[in-house]
Amino acid sequence: MNLTLNHPQLISLAAGFTDHETLPVMELRAAVNQVLNTRESALPALQYGSTEGSGELRRITAARLAAQDTAAGGTVSAYPADHLVITNGSQQLLYLAAEALCDPGDVVLVEDPTYFVFLGIAQSHGLKCRGVRMTEHGIDPEHLDRVLYSLRKTGGLRRTKFLYLVSYFQNPSGLTASFENKRQALAILRAYEQKAGHPIYLLEDAAYRELRFTGDDVPSALAVAGAAERVIYAGTYSKPFATGLRVGFGWLPDSVRSVILRIKSNHDFGTSNLSQCILAAALKNGSYDRHLPALQNRYARKAKTMLKSLHAAFPRAAQWVAPQGGLYCWTQLPRAIKTGPRSAFFRDALKANVLYVPGELCYADDTTRPKPQNGMRLSFGNASPGDIQTAIGRLGALAQRRAIN
Amino acid sequence: MNLTLNHPQLISLAAGFTDHETLPVMELRAAVNQVLNTRESALPALQYGSTEGSGELRRITAARLAAQDTAAGGTVSAYPADHLVITNGSQQLLYLAAEALCDPGDVVLVEDPTYFVFLGIAQSHGLKCRGVRMTEHGIDPEHLDRVLYSLRKTGGLRRTKFLYLVSYFQNPSGLTASFENKRQALAILRAYEQKAGHPIYLLEDAAYRELRFTGDDVPSALAVAGAAERVIYAGTYSKPFATGLRVGFGWLPDSVRSVILRIKSNHDFGTSNLSQCILAAALKNGSYDRHLPALQNRYARKAKTMLKSLHAAFPRAAQWVAPQGGLYCWTQLPRAIKTGPRSAFFRDALKANVLYVPGELCYADDTTRPKPQNGMRLSFGNASPGDIQTAIGRLGALAQRRAIN
Repeated sequence: MNLTLNHPQLISLAAGFTDHETLPVMELRAAVNQVLNTRESALPALQYGSTEGSGELRRITAARLAAQDTAAGGTVSAYPADHLVITNGSQQLLYLAAEALCDPGDVVLVEDPTYFVFLGIAQSHGLKCRGVRMTEHGIDPEHLDRVLYSLRKTGGLRRTKFLYLVSYFQNPSGLTASFENKRQALAILRAYEQKAGHPIYLLEDAAYRELRFTGDDVPSALAVAGAAERVIYAGTYSKPFATGLRVGFGWLPDSVRSVILRIKSNHDFGTSNLSQCILAAALKNGSYDRHLPALQNRYARKAKTMLKSLHAAFPRAAQWVAPQGGLYCWTQLPRAIKTGPRSAFFRDALKANVLYVPGELCYADDTTRPKPQNGMRLSFGNASPGDIQTAIGRLGALAQRRAIN
Repeated sequence: MNLTLNHPQLISLAAGFTDHETLPVMELRAAVNQVLNTRESALPALQYGSTEGSGELRRITAARLAAQDTAAGGTVSAYPADHLVITNGSQQLLYLAAEALCDPGDVVLVEDPTYFVFLGIAQSHGLKCRGVRMTEHGIDPEHLDRVLYSLRKTGGLRRTKFLYLVSYFQNPSGLTASFENKRQALAILRAYEQKAGHPIYLLEDAAYRELRFTGDDVPSALAVAGAAERVIYAGTYSKPFATGLRVGFGWLPDSVRSVILRIKSNHDFGTSNLSQCILAAALKNGSYDRHLPALQNRYARKAKTMLKSLHAAFPRAAQWVAPQGGLYCWTQLPRAIKTGPRSAFFRDALKANVLYVPGELCYADDTTRPKPQNGMRLSFGNASPGDIQTAIGRLGALAQRRAIN
């Protein structure tokens, strides 16, 4: 991110920034005016709130989550709002969950590949990550079972605390876990709990859920029968609306909630009350939901531009996943072309003023398999359609040259 | 805080909330309108920023800090803005500093008494706190030397990482450290560095600095010659303006800055850009600085109300420090009256709908001295003048009854 901000000539396909064009200035103005309109409505927004966040925003969020899961086909009763905690983006919840559930030396299961910042969080807490293979429907249940079995055999199961899934338009692969897949994952985790001697949670990172531009929504893991005591759900209002607000939320089992609140009160006493009030206003007056289709259409068009450019410019042996939502197009070059941060390809791309996230950064340091070295996470989030075309063209030319040599 | 929010009939002298009456609604409205006025000015506010925070806010903050230290009599050259990091209130910086500088089992020196939330942060990082006695000018330098000497003798010096000082209107004691006191503290820390085998930092928490209502400002420890590589300065824009914004800042030595930025990017990628832009606008258009005197006057009047009520209602043997700023009046009852969270006095106060922070919560678990058990941190921050009178009257009656029995 910093590289991008300091070198404006660079076309960044790296950062998960949202699209400048879509930022809801009018909607924000209206929501802020509502909040600050009267002294009575303004004062609570300018005062400290509570660590768990605004009661109103939590109630709206709980109702919204239940409605989303129901609309997606889940059999859902209400999600009680007192399980919700408002956070500084969903990012903070990932950090808090890792801190609350783990001790240094513990094991966390992640998708292979996974969100690279989560790997940084795990590292900073001294955790070991084990990768679980993915299929097009989410993680491979057989492999999850095999990894847990091998952890049991090697004594690691007692240190295994949770499975981290980016379940919608996964970062970086773009894949979405099916509901059945999440159900299976929870059942497998549950089957190992007795041997583990403690609960093994599923941390569902749904940061991209509202960025779907094609296909149908999938119920969250919270909708799996009997799962509410094992699922931590991380959502966000930042990416689908205005990232500058930095407001996310977590739905937490009772057993985890009090610990996370204690840690959050050490971090910051609670998320900016003004940001929370603005969001509550935008959700209540409907502008948040009216804004979503515009955002989704914009990303759909940019994803299309990226796919077209990839078809036109990249070597035939390259492969990618056409995204149904989210911000990323996960692309594999021919295996001989290494894309890592120290590779010639990455350097050449930088020289050509194009930045991407090297795929190998998205794999855990898991010695049970080699890290694939030919992947790229290409984001169509922030760059303009013209820049996407230009950047993919440049990367394609570099890849063509190396594919021939 | 949560107790207060959920029981509106309670008069809270506990929370460090700011005064509702003083919240700058008009000023906020004007600043927000400036930020959202044009699409051009609004877009950066609604987008992600960088982890270290807005360049503009950091430049304004650096210049402001240098001007404050100069006005207070310090001999100060410019403070480079690239040493600044914007945080979610100064609270987050305390957390980040503890995480960046310490490993579990390390030792941190704190004032005796100190900010109780910092003790919680230290505990959550597995740190041991050693208390350093206070004089009316700040910590007792002789005692600081004695504590360090005893740590050296017992092998703890190699684990001692920093001294935490709340240097302006200390929380809870209300005392302000003199500049000479900070100079002495830095010299003593420096003298033990060789034996420690690493730098020993001074973390200066200046959260209340701008809440002075009488007397002259004191330069920060950054103004001590040669200290810039050892001082971490934590400031805030929340308490002096609108706590709902949750924006603080840290001035960090080079050696600490990159580590703290890495941790902050794991926490949240950076503080809400909208909040930062609003503050930058309020600082630039002068409304922040015009608001300060109103705030200071309000607290001065409420402090006076509290002191008058204490004189009128409390037993003669009770003692307190008349504050020159900040939010607290640190009060000692006769030693026989215990004020702890499990004491009869605390329970009686709650029954009388009055909440205070028991003094013993403000002392580190330091086995080298017993914890005083008769203190109370009484805040005049949030309660109205009438409520302050009522609450102090009730506490006084309870104390009189126990002083007689």
